[in-house]
Amino acid sequence: MDSNEELVRFIDRASSLCMPSLSIDCVIFGFHSNQLKVLLLRLKYGPNWSLPGGFIYRQEHIDDAANRILMERTGLNKIFLRQFRIFGDPGRSDLNAMSTVLEAEKIRLDGDHWVLQRFLTVGYYALVEFSHVQPRADSISMACEWADLHRVPHLIMDHGAILESALGTLRQQLNYQPIGYNLLPAKFTMPELQSLYETILDKKLDRRNFQRRMLGYGILKRLKETRKGGAHKAPYLYSFNLRRYRKALDLGLQSSW
Amino acid sequence: MDSNEELVRFIDRASSLCMPSLSIDCVIFGFHSNQLKVLLLRLKYGPNWSLPGGFIYRQEHIDDAANRILMERTGLNKIFLRQFRIFGDPGRSDLNAMSTVLEAEKIRLDGDHWVLQRFLTVGYYALVEFSHVQPRADSISMACEWADLHRVPHLIMDHGAILESALGTLRQQLNYQPIGYNLLPAKFTMPELQSLYETILDKKLDRRNFQRRMLGYGILKRLKETRKGGAHKAPYLYSFNLRRYRKALDLGLQSSW
Repeated sequence: MDSNEELVRFIDRASSLCMPSLSIDCVIFGFHSNQLKVLLLRLKYGPNWSLPGGFIYRQEHIDDAANRILMERTGLNKIFLRQFRIFGDPGRSDLNAMSTVLEAEKIRLDGDHWVLQRFLTVGYYALVEFSHVQPRADSISMACEWADLHRVPHLIMDHGAILESALGTLRQQLNYQPIGYNLLPAKFTMPELQSLYETILDKKLDRRNFQRRMLGYGILKRLKETRKGGAHKAPYLYSFNLRRYRKALDLGLQSSW
Repeated sequence: MDSNEELVRFIDRASSLCMPSLSIDCVIFGFHSNQLKVLLLRLKYGPNWSLPGGFIYRQEHIDDAANRILMERTGLNKIFLRQFRIFGDPGRSDLNAMSTVLEAEKIRLDGDHWVLQRFLTVGYYALVEFSHVQPRADSISMACEWADLHRVPHLIMDHGAILESALGTLRQQLNYQPIGYNLLPAKFTMPELQSLYETILDKKLDRRNFQRRMLGYGILKRLKETRKGGAHKAPYLYSFNLRRYRKALDLGLQSSW
């Protein structure tokens, strides 16, 4: 089946089965040894990169839709996605770009067709260990790849702004929610935890302030073991106190006023 | 015009001018001298209380829609509304309740009418000084009133859950964003600021921890004046350092790691 037929089938299916005027876009951040990446799709029709996105079935919970879309379009499953914002600028749907694609593909649609309406989109984001997951493209994409956050290609529509907004949310979240479980090994050093924060914030942090603040949250257990083998004094190993970590996920860090 | 005609006109107008399947609901918290209230509408058709809500015009920015809806339905203008979540459970639209209202009002609509579709709703919230604003009901509501948060009547559909979610967001926000400007007098005492936090959190806070934490944020200026006239030692007066306060609004409190 060529890309034209695939596209026609995709549009047909979505317009008959899905909610009108509302889409979902997923910003999947990947962390691995001091690198922060974002998952992008290269669309078959055109030289365009986009966030993985899709539509909501007529009787589907919006959170289920987000997980299904991510699975269908990237092969990633069981990732904890957080909704962070709805993007509702009336100018965000680029109807000219859409018409260009449809013309190039020789697809004719009525002007009031489902796909040519204004769409608002709900942004979801997640942060995963990218060496644990193997993204794969779906049938209407050429490629599904991790892109370095410092070298993101031009994205379609307002996807660049959606990515920026997700990154801002992730960084702000560091101030009130614990992070690191599933991203770090079960036993980790304070410098490894600090690297995670520095990578997300894209700046160096003061070692002593960082340690004081992290220990103050009460979510870390200092183990009796140390990390052997380095040139320096063997640093202590830590693990998360998962009960307190999960409590902080629910109630926020530092809720003890 | 009786309520039936008003309702028919409202439905007609909304279905021809507004986006399908998407609504907005506003949770307006009001603070005044140790009380926290929420703004509710009593709907004309039925004994039902609801959050102020409405729909998005076809070419309207969603944030503009939220402000217009709040103005139209409550008379409140120029309130800074924050989007906090989209509610997308397919069971949230109570079609039975809607059909009952329409039957009682003798309004017949096709089963696939705009108003009988599944709606997702975008939640917005704000916190205002309630003695500064005079709410008024619109033409399809009987009343627009401040309700004590401890005595909220039963709300239609999932509006109770939307209110809870907004309250949770407001409380979590205290951990990373400054609050108080426009809610307190220009000069205030530390106990007055603490009262604001205690009222929102609905619990007592430790006086010394609170003061240490507040001063640590660097957003307060201690004035040379004291508050005269009490039985106790005259407490210091404070004002907000607005430059730092606004910076913390953008970047989050304690962003200095």
